[in-house]
Amino acid sequence: MADKKITLLDSWLSPFGIRVRIALAQKGIEYEYKEENLSDKSPLLLQMNPVKKQIPILIHNEKPVCESLIIVQYIDEVWNQKSPLLPSDPYQRAQARFWADSVDKKVYSLGKQVWLSTGEAQEAAKKELLEFFKLMEGELGQKSYFGGETLGFVDVALIPFYTWFSALEHFGSFLMVEECPKLVAWALKCMEEESVSKTLPDLKKAFDFFVDTKAKLANN
Amino acid sequence: MADKKITLLDSWLSPFGIRVRIALAQKGIEYEYKEENLSDKSPLLLQMNPVKKQIPILIHNEKPVCESLIIVQYIDEVWNQKSPLLPSDPYQRAQARFWADSVDKKVYSLGKQVWLSTGEAQEAAKKELLEFFKLMEGELGQKSYFGGETLGFVDVALIPFYTWFSALEHFGSFLMVEECPKLVAWALKCMEEESVSKTLPDLKKAFDFFVDTKAKLANN
Repeated sequence: MADKKITLLDSWLSPFGIRVRIALAQKGIEYEYKEENLSDKSPLLLQMNPVKKQIPILIHNEKPVCESLIIVQYIDEVWNQKSPLLPSDPYQRAQARFWADSVDKKVYSLGKQVWLSTGEAQEAAKKELLEFFKLMEGELGQKSYFGGETLGFVDVALIPFYTWFSALEHFGSFLMVEECPKLVAWALKCMEEESVSKTLPDLKKAFDFFVDTKAKLANN
Repeated sequence: MADKKITLLDSWLSPFGIRVRIALAQKGIEYEYKEENLSDKSPLLLQMNPVKKQIPILIHNEKPVCESLIIVQYIDEVWNQKSPLLPSDPYQRAQARFWADSVDKKVYSLGKQVWLSTGEAQEAAKKELLEFFKLMEGELGQKSYFGGETLGFVDVALIPFYTWFSALEHFGSFLMVEECPKLVAWALKCMEEESVSKTLPDLKKAFDFFVDTKAKLANN
């Protein structure tokens, strides 16, 4: 099953797509990367994900798997001989799924508000986001990774948002290292993993994208 | 592990809570049910789910599991000897997770808009919801259940919303049996399962709740 052609439809700065790329790198899986233009989606994307019309899409054996956390679980189940991402204990698995799901529901929407909104809405989003980051620091505790001694499911879910940190600091007027020093140390630890450091887009390029996009939106 | 005390914090008409109750019934698991007052949440709820402060919460061995689809997977993994809910094949598992996740992202929010909004917003939500239901009919195909010949993960995710059907028809001015006859036949088939029919709240009581709540909101 694992040797057939694998294609990933993705977009370079998508935190969801980056998750899938890290998981593939952790497992040492070769694949074809196809960058999508999200304002002019390819016929292949629309054919492979007619329900949500979103990247990332992993195409394996000509069949699509959609939704980043579902794709990462799929990769972990199919290529289960190397670098397990989810714990084997059912309770620990449920906890890992819970934190990864919470990242989806909190970090993406709140981070976007810190980036694009202003005034009270921005302040409220920043406050809630930092509260959530502090809860995550509590969950991390004294471990190296959320997954324990090795990179796991929650790490893969959260680390793509490291590309947002500078922009969050810039637009939210705070310093991550002051507010959430343990989370910054965790991110630096993750960056020691080649699967992470070679996958994450250049941090300065990401920062410039966030600044430029906000400026363009303000001028429209 | 399976014989320690199990408690469910829930609310009678929550489609998310109903999922968990159906899964517990399918597996034949006894548990203590605690109805929560969602406008005055119990200290136990706040202690057990400090991140999201939401029901349902399954407390097993004094430890909480939160988020309905994560709880259902946990139940399926811990009590794995009876009535499997997720398929064993990784691709089929990913597909089941995708459709269950889509139910979360589409049916709940769009259904709520059909119920509580008016005019163009209501029409747009109704159109998108019916389009999604038709996609689900395509996924169901000629099978008895989304899970095949037996009730599975996607069935458990979707069937609680059967308690919404009458209200959706009433507020959206359409008939489910005309728009989505296969989905109605599927729901009736699910209701032949005791785990479903004995768990779902009385449909008339649910309908009255939706009508009364909208009337109260309009008067405030």
